Amino acid sequence: MTDDSLTDDSAPAAPQKLSRRGLLGLAGAGVVGLGVGVAGDRGVLAATATAGGSTTGGTSYPFFGAHQSGIVTPAQDRLHFAAFDMSSTATRADLIELLQDWSTAAALMCQGKPVGEFGAVDGPYDAPPQDTGEALDLPTGGLTITIGFGPTLFVDASGADRFGIASKRPTELTELPHFPADDLDAQRTGGDLCIQACSDDPQIAVHAIRNLSRIAFGRASLRWSQLGFGRTSSTSTSQVTPRNLFGFKDGTANIKAEEPGKVSTSVWVNSADAPAWMAGGSYLVARRIRMTIETWDRTALSEQEKIIGRTKGEGAPLSGGTEFTAPDFSVLGRADKPLIDTDSHVRLAHPDSNAGSEILRRGYNFVDGNDNLGRLDAGLFFISYQRSPAQFIDIQMNLAKNDLMNEYIRHVGSGLFAVPPGAKKGSYVGAGLFS
Amino acid sequence: MTDDSLTDDSAPAAPQKLSRRGLLGLAGAGVVGLGVGVAGDRGVLAATATAGGSTTGGTSYPFFGAHQSGIVTPAQDRLHFAAFDMSSTATRADLIELLQDWSTAAALMCQGKPVGEFGAVDGPYDAPPQDTGEALDLPTGGLTITIGFGPTLFVDASGADRFGIASKRPTELTELPHFPADDLDAQRTGGDLCIQACSDDPQIAVHAIRNLSRIAFGRASLRWSQLGFGRTSSTSTSQVTPRNLFGFKDGTANIKAEEPGKVSTSVWVNSADAPAWMAGGSYLVARRIRMTIETWDRTALSEQEKIIGRTKGEGAPLSGGTEFTAPDFSVLGRADKPLIDTDSHVRLAHPDSNAGSEILRRGYNFVDGNDNLGRLDAGLFFISYQRSPAQFIDIQMNLAKNDLMNEYIRHVGSGLFAVPPGAKKGSYVGAGLFS
Repeated sequence: MTDDSLTDDSAPAAPQKLSRRGLLGLAGAGVVGLGVGVAGDRGVLAATATAGGSTTGGTSYPFFGAHQSGIVTPAQDRLHFAAFDMSSTATRADLIELLQDWSTAAALMCQGKPVGEFGAVDGPYDAPPQDTGEALDLPTGGLTITIGFGPTLFVDASGADRFGIASKRPTELTELPHFPADDLDAQRTGGDLCIQACSDDPQIAVHAIRNLSRIAFGRASLRWSQLGFGRTSSTSTSQVTPRNLFGFKDGTANIKAEEPGKVSTSVWVNSADAPAWMAGGSYLVARRIRMTIETWDRTALSEQEKIIGRTKGEGAPLSGGTEFTAPDFSVLGRADKPLIDTDSHVRLAHPDSNAGSEILRRGYNFVDGNDNLGRLDAGLFFISYQRSPAQFIDIQMNLAKNDLMNEYIRHVGSGLFAVPPGAKKGSYVGAGLFS
Repeated sequence: MTDDSLTDDSAPAAPQKLSRRGLLGLAGAGVVGLGVGVAGDRGVLAATATAGGSTTGGTSYPFFGAHQSGIVTPAQDRLHFAAFDMSSTATRADLIELLQDWSTAAALMCQGKPVGEFGAVDGPYDAPPQDTGEALDLPTGGLTITIGFGPTLFVDASGADRFGIASKRPTELTELPHFPADDLDAQRTGGDLCIQACSDDPQIAVHAIRNLSRIAFGRASLRWSQLGFGRTSSTSTSQVTPRNLFGFKDGTANIKAEEPGKVSTSVWVNSADAPAWMAGGSYLVARRIRMTIETWDRTALSEQEKIIGRTKGEGAPLSGGTEFTAPDFSVLGRADKPLIDTDSHVRLAHPDSNAGSEILRRGYNFVDGNDNLGRLDAGLFFISYQRSPAQFIDIQMNLAKNDLMNEYIRHVGSGLFAVPPGAKKGSYVGAGLFS
């Protein structure tokens, strides 16, 4: 169940405590100073669940390790992603304490445990419960919690070095460039910090974001958030390729955990890269991509396949073969035109069209109700991990200029975050930034 | 796998066709007159799926039968609910044809089949695919599709009898009364028609609503829609009681499918009830209930339990026992006050407080991002089924006036729909309305 051989938390975790501020966030005034124990283990309670009660199982991934989980971890089915802004009064000490508290709570939740004392018998009955409780009977559900830092954490909009870490900012961690046809909503863009919570059960992912938001109280608050209901990429060869809301298989040629060479070259920041505190980390790009599915749905199958460059049913490249056959861009058809259009998505996104650049995609389908014209607010919440933001920028600039698909999509939200390496047990995510 | 012994579609379905209009909706201009076959059966493709590819199984429920599925069917884990308005130019014939098309398509999807021809080999390559395709590799996922009629379908806001069915309107099918503290958003309230799609896989539920919306093209369009990620009620004794976003078990005392007496008395419209076309049907109430979870989370455990009337961990009534012990409202505690507060939710919602009225609850948790203050837009999408809307109205009036929980909730959306009985094979949902 570990996704990294260097992880070291198979042993029982040492007792951990939330900070005074973290407790305040969880419980409001009145409980400061109470010890924090762990009253229940969801895994035990979950043993009574039937198939009808929960569709998830007891898979668990370590929070501590050389890399953060949730990157090369086989993509879980559900997502709750949240971006946070630090409060205007927060100090460097507050930021450190917040990251410590988030790490402590995340490690507990990834083991299926509540974030603090709970229940009338063990907990403080006259104080708010420290865990909100909605995941109490659920199994671990393969939860991963992945924490990232936005450019504004290092240098804010006014140029201020609020937390004394401006000198530690990776040169590449700046706002993404404006891509052609970007239509970004400031309310869905940016953020000082981000948390990606993935699980096979949405209630477990929602529970994680909710409780981490509470813990942040007074130090950081939610800027924007997004639920995703269906993964759109495989990150392991053990997974079936899922479909996006265009109805096509997505992520066939994604980087897989079983390709250590590619993962090492394209996903993890290397110890030779700067800055040193990011070694073993990665860069996360999030893009909320609205699909105009009503228009797409009125497009001929032949046109849809031309745009994608693959068949809709099997997902095979139009140059022939089956889903996992490599596309052959040189094969010509009628009138000596390439069978895979030069402006097709599969061709423009292919490493051959991008100087070899590859990224690890980890996106989710979303539907957020509908607009006043009766059109579903639906699309792809794109997430990718890469060793350098330049990999994404090169590919996206190419796609934004040429992709036939652009007629049917609109990028409406965006974020770039530096995802530090995993924390050692007893430490916290991002510790290297403050040493 | 059937939820009703009277269902009769275990035999292979007779070939069914969508109307010319339905095809237009699916495919746009250019394919009218093409025959509609079924090119693929998702069940076959799904046999290759791994646990990582989909968390759902091959459960299937019949679309045809004495009652519509999705009512006493064991509550699936995920929901996509949609309300539609008929177009201003739609005729009685259009409404009949739409209900026929929806029934045809729903029956196919409940068997795991796409709604029309699909794919380069079997389908019309130069026309839009009739099925949008995103559920193509998925199993049946326990999909149910339940169709209802709003008051405005019978008599519109101007008093017009647009479809010649005003005389068939059940007397009880009118707008719900204004309840104290209702804060309804017109954009999330009402509708001429509704469809409840439930599945253990959200992508399957979304696929159903999306394709039924396409089929409605030119005849009806989406008014509002809601995704729900976690069921909040058990409707079968085989199910573990889930938790709502207050962190409490919800629906412990719900009507269960295994209680035929209660189902018969409280859920199904009886042949002695009027009008005759509703016999075997039910009334659906939907309420979007926003929870102010940030405030709730700052409330002491003792206060939370007082409000609910049950313990948070076990879900036992405060009068003692375990989850399924009946609450004893007569037990007194300190100062001779009842252990279960007179204004607690469990007490006010109990049949004893409502002249014996019971309803079958079938709601879902939702989180739709967050507001500008960083508060999650979260709550309960309440759905209940009852033989008469009066059952809900009595209980809700009692709750709205007295429930201690009101401080933490706000009803922001609402709908009442008459859900006709199930269709016989070869017929369609609502046929009795037009005979």
